Amino acid sequence: MTAETTPFGIGVLGAGTVGGAFAELLPERAEAIVNLTGLRPEITGVLTRSRGDFDDIVERSQLIVELIGGLEPARDYVLRAMRAGRHVVTANKQLLAVHGEELWATAREHGVQLRFEGAVAGVVPVIRVMQESLAGSHVERVSGIVNGTTNYILTEMAAKGVSYAEALADAQRLGYAEADPSDDVNGKDAAAKMAILARLAFDTPVSLDDVPYEGIEDITAEDMQFARDLRLGLKLIGTAERVDGGLSVRVHPTLLYSGHPLASVHGPYNAVTVEAPAITEITMSGPGAGGPQTATAVLGDVISAMIPPASTPETTQRLPMIEDVVSAFYVRMEVADRPGVLAQVAEVLGMQGCSIKQLYQHGLGDDARLVMTIHPVLESRLFAALQLIGRLDFIRSAPHAIRVIEEEYV
Amino acid sequence: MTAETTPFGIGVLGAGTVGGAFAELLPERAEAIVNLTGLRPEITGVLTRSRGDFDDIVERSQLIVELIGGLEPARDYVLRAMRAGRHVVTANKQLLAVHGEELWATAREHGVQLRFEGAVAGVVPVIRVMQESLAGSHVERVSGIVNGTTNYILTEMAAKGVSYAEALADAQRLGYAEADPSDDVNGKDAAAKMAILARLAFDTPVSLDDVPYEGIEDITAEDMQFARDLRLGLKLIGTAERVDGGLSVRVHPTLLYSGHPLASVHGPYNAVTVEAPAITEITMSGPGAGGPQTATAVLGDVISAMIPPASTPETTQRLPMIEDVVSAFYVRMEVADRPGVLAQVAEVLGMQGCSIKQLYQHGLGDDARLVMTIHPVLESRLFAALQLIGRLDFIRSAPHAIRVIEEEYV
Repeated sequence: MTAETTPFGIGVLGAGTVGGAFAELLPERAEAIVNLTGLRPEITGVLTRSRGDFDDIVERSQLIVELIGGLEPARDYVLRAMRAGRHVVTANKQLLAVHGEELWATAREHGVQLRFEGAVAGVVPVIRVMQESLAGSHVERVSGIVNGTTNYILTEMAAKGVSYAEALADAQRLGYAEADPSDDVNGKDAAAKMAILARLAFDTPVSLDDVPYEGIEDITAEDMQFARDLRLGLKLIGTAERVDGGLSVRVHPTLLYSGHPLASVHGPYNAVTVEAPAITEITMSGPGAGGPQTATAVLGDVISAMIPPASTPETTQRLPMIEDVVSAFYVRMEVADRPGVLAQVAEVLGMQGCSIKQLYQHGLGDDARLVMTIHPVLESRLFAALQLIGRLDFIRSAPHAIRVIEEEYV
Repeated sequence: MTAETTPFGIGVLGAGTVGGAFAELLPERAEAIVNLTGLRPEITGVLTRSRGDFDDIVERSQLIVELIGGLEPARDYVLRAMRAGRHVVTANKQLLAVHGEELWATAREHGVQLRFEGAVAGVVPVIRVMQESLAGSHVERVSGIVNGTTNYILTEMAAKGVSYAEALADAQRLGYAEADPSDDVNGKDAAAKMAILARLAFDTPVSLDDVPYEGIEDITAEDMQFARDLRLGLKLIGTAERVDGGLSVRVHPTLLYSGHPLASVHGPYNAVTVEAPAITEITMSGPGAGGPQTATAVLGDVISAMIPPASTPETTQRLPMIEDVVSAFYVRMEVADRPGVLAQVAEVLGMQGCSIKQLYQHGLGDDARLVMTIHPVLESRLFAALQLIGRLDFIRSAPHAIRVIEEEYV
């Protein structure tokens, strides 16, 4: 069947980080895509500054993936591809924030799809959710952490008490900030993304020029200290909301109460909260950038453009169901408070390969409560040990176990 | 144009909370749906135990919304509707967790859509994201808080130190738990949802029988206290993950380190985290249940079934862009440390209608640093006040303002 599957030609413009990750991801997932769509995706060509012919690539493709970035020649290529009847998938936020209406109108006019999940918040599926899941909602407000560089810097400043300059240098060293970080730290990148989100959420034209923005360059280590004293988180927040029958879209540093859904978004992560009367709010979060992440968002768009999933396809896997897995545990039990009890408990656990990590003992008159955490172990071993322990004569209440997810274990 | 739009008939089975909310939401959003789809949604009939004729409703509908719940007669109706060539949207997790493969096969056979976003995590768009955005991903693990009743109870126990019985009674009083809460608190409801998620994530058949589950009935106030001592959160977590070439799907109480994306999900909210190598992880959260929330998820599915959004429709709104909005603020400035300075600052703020909420003063030799928070005010007024203050002779460094999002203000 594989050899006879109809091919679906994909032309790629640009061969940077995302383009490279996309070219790697596509063949890995080709079989799954054939199963989902009935079509076999094939890269027809890659256009870079030095090689490839645009017209030839378009001619041999049903869909063009634009990963060049910037306004020109990206705009020209995208328009020409759509006018030639090709679907387009792009991750270019600047292009959409400036020329979005022209591009969407061209897509409608030529009956092709223009998809752009990768343009905002990487693989966090905010575009699709806004366009599809929330198509029936009257959105009141969209708030987002949509720039990973600044969120990384602010997280470092909050966690380590370092200055803006130190945190920026650190971000540059780790690849979370560009050599020239201006458009990230001054808020312009976030403003472009908020323009796109606002356009979708409020069904009204919004361009980058409509979005006032302020960056994080003036945030000091002392601001962070005061934020902590006030029990507030400091984030670069993009907001788009209905105000008095109009719309306000803006980006600026903001202090958030600790229960706000965006307050616990740390490091280079992005997150978007959408509020509407019927839904209260939903929040989506995940890595905001990175080659594989953005390439995954692009691939999701490509698959959707290949064929909308009208139904849930037949399963192709027959994975065995595993009953016994490894987990860390918290265990409590009540025991008679006499010498040797703890040694016996530890011995039974040890025989089953369960190793105690932390142990607390509280007196309860003649009895004692033992509370302990257990290092990761096969569940069957822990339960076997607890069953044995439960039969010992000093047990006052049966051992009770709760699984633990530890950071280092996950 | 409105009068001539082609109608799209929607038959509704069931008239409970979600059915009622759906019947209310649909006309409210009808114009937006016409703009998105070119079709006018119309309810052709509502089937309840006492009124309506199933065959007649199917005859006059292109799509059937199933909100009866339970296995029969829901299964029979859904199968008959699909065999008659009608799309089906359902929020029935039990039906899908038990008879999913039969239903999906019938949908494929008859070329109709079977959509079910409302069946898992209410309006949190986890089904769509799994089926579409992540269609190109190799998922390693799905973890979720997929039962709002138990998360509410655990949140209350953690926050107030109350017993399980007290928190359950509270949840029942507030409508977060049913009179008979068994299937929620014993983990069965969550197990059904995890079976559906696992089936989609791992492309392998998973039914409710494959999912061992454990509830929260045995969690004590003391467990909660120990969890706090250990700096861990205690949640009812559903897990579906690849293990040794197989699959483990299970539901049980779990202690989470505080940085885990699910640890900060509180109250009746639901959240799902999906992990895959190319995406790292994404998390989606929001209200897990409620009539309007589930009805919104159902409506999103209905719209998708009406016509897949091939492109971004033309905007229909021309909302004015608002430049000046109300916000609370944090302000810092350095001033000469002499009598009368604070009074002057407060006076200028007061003249502009800005009211101080909290004030801190730190000595810096001859100077002092003033840090204050300001009650919500129009931004232009606060900036005008700061500009005036910046010109006063005792100012050593210009006032710097950061917006604050306060819980009570949001």
